[in-house]
Amino acid sequence: MTSVDESASSGIDGTPLTIAQIADRAGVSVATVSKVVNGRDNVAAETRELVEDIIRRYGYRRQKRQGKAAPLLEVVFHELRGLYGIEIINGVEQVARRHRLGVVVSELEGRHVPGPGWVEDVLARRPTGVIAVFTELTAEQREQLRSRDIPLVLVDPAGDLDTASAAVGANNWNGGLTATRHLLALGHRRIAVITGPEHVLSARARLDGFRAAMDLAKAPVDPALIRIGDYQIADGRHHTRELLRLEEPPTAIVTGNDGEALGVYQAAAEVGLRVPEDLSVVGYDDLPAAEWCIPPLTTVRQPLREMAAAAADMLLALARSEPLPRQRVELATELIVRGSTAPPAFPGR
Amino acid sequence: MTSVDESASSGIDGTPLTIAQIADRAGVSVATVSKVVNGRDNVAAETRELVEDIIRRYGYRRQKRQGKAAPLLEVVFHELRGLYGIEIINGVEQVARRHRLGVVVSELEGRHVPGPGWVEDVLARRPTGVIAVFTELTAEQREQLRSRDIPLVLVDPAGDLDTASAAVGANNWNGGLTATRHLLALGHRRIAVITGPEHVLSARARLDGFRAAMDLAKAPVDPALIRIGDYQIADGRHHTRELLRLEEPPTAIVTGNDGEALGVYQAAAEVGLRVPEDLSVVGYDDLPAAEWCIPPLTTVRQPLREMAAAAADMLLALARSEPLPRQRVELATELIVRGSTAPPAFPGR
Repeated sequence: MTSVDESASSGIDGTPLTIAQIADRAGVSVATVSKVVNGRDNVAAETRELVEDIIRRYGYRRQKRQGKAAPLLEVVFHELRGLYGIEIINGVEQVARRHRLGVVVSELEGRHVPGPGWVEDVLARRPTGVIAVFTELTAEQREQLRSRDIPLVLVDPAGDLDTASAAVGANNWNGGLTATRHLLALGHRRIAVITGPEHVLSARARLDGFRAAMDLAKAPVDPALIRIGDYQIADGRHHTRELLRLEEPPTAIVTGNDGEALGVYQAAAEVGLRVPEDLSVVGYDDLPAAEWCIPPLTTVRQPLREMAAAAADMLLALARSEPLPRQRVELATELIVRGSTAPPAFPGR
Repeated sequence: MTSVDESASSGIDGTPLTIAQIADRAGVSVATVSKVVNGRDNVAAETRELVEDIIRRYGYRRQKRQGKAAPLLEVVFHELRGLYGIEIINGVEQVARRHRLGVVVSELEGRHVPGPGWVEDVLARRPTGVIAVFTELTAEQREQLRSRDIPLVLVDPAGDLDTASAAVGANNWNGGLTATRHLLALGHRRIAVITGPEHVLSARARLDGFRAAMDLAKAPVDPALIRIGDYQIADGRHHTRELLRLEEPPTAIVTGNDGEALGVYQAAAEVGLRVPEDLSVVGYDDLPAAEWCIPPLTTVRQPLREMAAAAADMLLALARSEPLPRQRVELATELIVRGSTAPPAFPGR
């Protein structure tokens, strides 16, 4: 449970302090502490550090009058590039509209950890809560939110799960397993995989699902067929070019997301290979593009809208100081079979 | 110029009133007027109507203390469905980040005019300004924003231009002209067009650009080759199916956006026609998909990010009560030639 169940957030050393007590201890004015608490700009870095340190140690007892959150939900993306972001925003909007909350969208320009300034801006806006999408917050940033009673929910967490944060994900291991089993059932044996980044746990879980399916089917896993991508179309294209140049190229490729799968399409087209006749491809996510690319993409559906809506609902429960039935929610993935997978031209190869 | 150049916004009948004067005139409490001004919920509909009416007639003189806008920019979309929205949000974020403003994104679920409740929520959030994307506000909603000194800028305006609103667009007529001239230069004569909705002025401007190019080249325009779509992939697919069934099908199609162009790809693939060998296609927008579809799409680039950033800059100028150098900004479109256009198989057909 997070701190919002309590009337004040305790620090590691116990009894939370009021703003006046923090000011007293730090030897600064009440106005200065108030600025730090509310993410205002004009405070010297050392002073801010000192005040944050005291808050971290003792906790901060919010006065009733200061307790009112703005009718805003914050959604922070590591990067806002493709249709993935649109699905998430739409999911959050569904819930926000019902509660007449504004949705503030921010983007970290590709950094997985929000940089300086970001958290201060959030504190200054005093949102009802923060949803971090495929983004890690530092322990300090989480603490800054916690001490101001701003709840946090992670969606599709990118890194190690800090157990104190509520999170919504999808069953990635199962997704990897199902995608691979589908190809095995069609008769493929020589299956390549293009994954997401190694530091991303969900990408690792999908790869492990792939390995498990191969192992259960007694199909050998050739290390040359395992490629690490970064969820970009260009990664799918690049790795597929290399895979197709192997002496014994794969007959099918499992990818880490739909973007990489579209890169596979491109590399196949470059050398005149047809999907699925000459090469089968499975995507991941089921973004709108999966439906309209040619051929339509067989993919593992990750219910992004539902995940985002679930995260928003959890956030509102936390903001109302309600206990969450569970701290970590995992929605099911589902294989959507379309036109990019078929039996191999030469079964058993 | 909008009202933010003045210290108070005048109504049609002259001298703006303070909250107390409005309350007096309406025979309600100051608290009630304050609720209406700030978009709060708990006011009877008739009372709200009465107060809004007085504000409309006399204007509202904002007290200094109430004048402070929240560090938020509002972006309202008629619909948040594809990569178009991502480009716009990223453009606004660029500017917002620099000024440490939060970007509130809302979506009207496909309605072109925001429904009841939307404007009250905006008023309650007191943003620094509102950017309406491909969306019309009613005269009343514009007036509600204006009387609260919340500036408004339209991006890619969908309907008739209310001359009082600042707006950023792109040169649609030129875009239609350039796309068509490119096909004419390749030797096409029988060119079809799939446009956007008839009530959308930008779609009409593009169609007129098409007609002008055809007329200048003395190429006949066959009314059977002019199709009205709604910017969806399915429209492109549907109309192309019909066009290809004509006794004399077109050798090239100019579309209203990249989505419709992808629908053309689908319909061509269904009947085994190759793009561009058997059918040339030109898109509109240059969304990321134009680059990675197969073949890459020749399209008219609409600088959506730059348009959104320009709108945000205009909004901030208005919020600082600076006069705008121009009320309506039109950015240039540019033809991006990629792989979906080629000379017709049978020139002169």
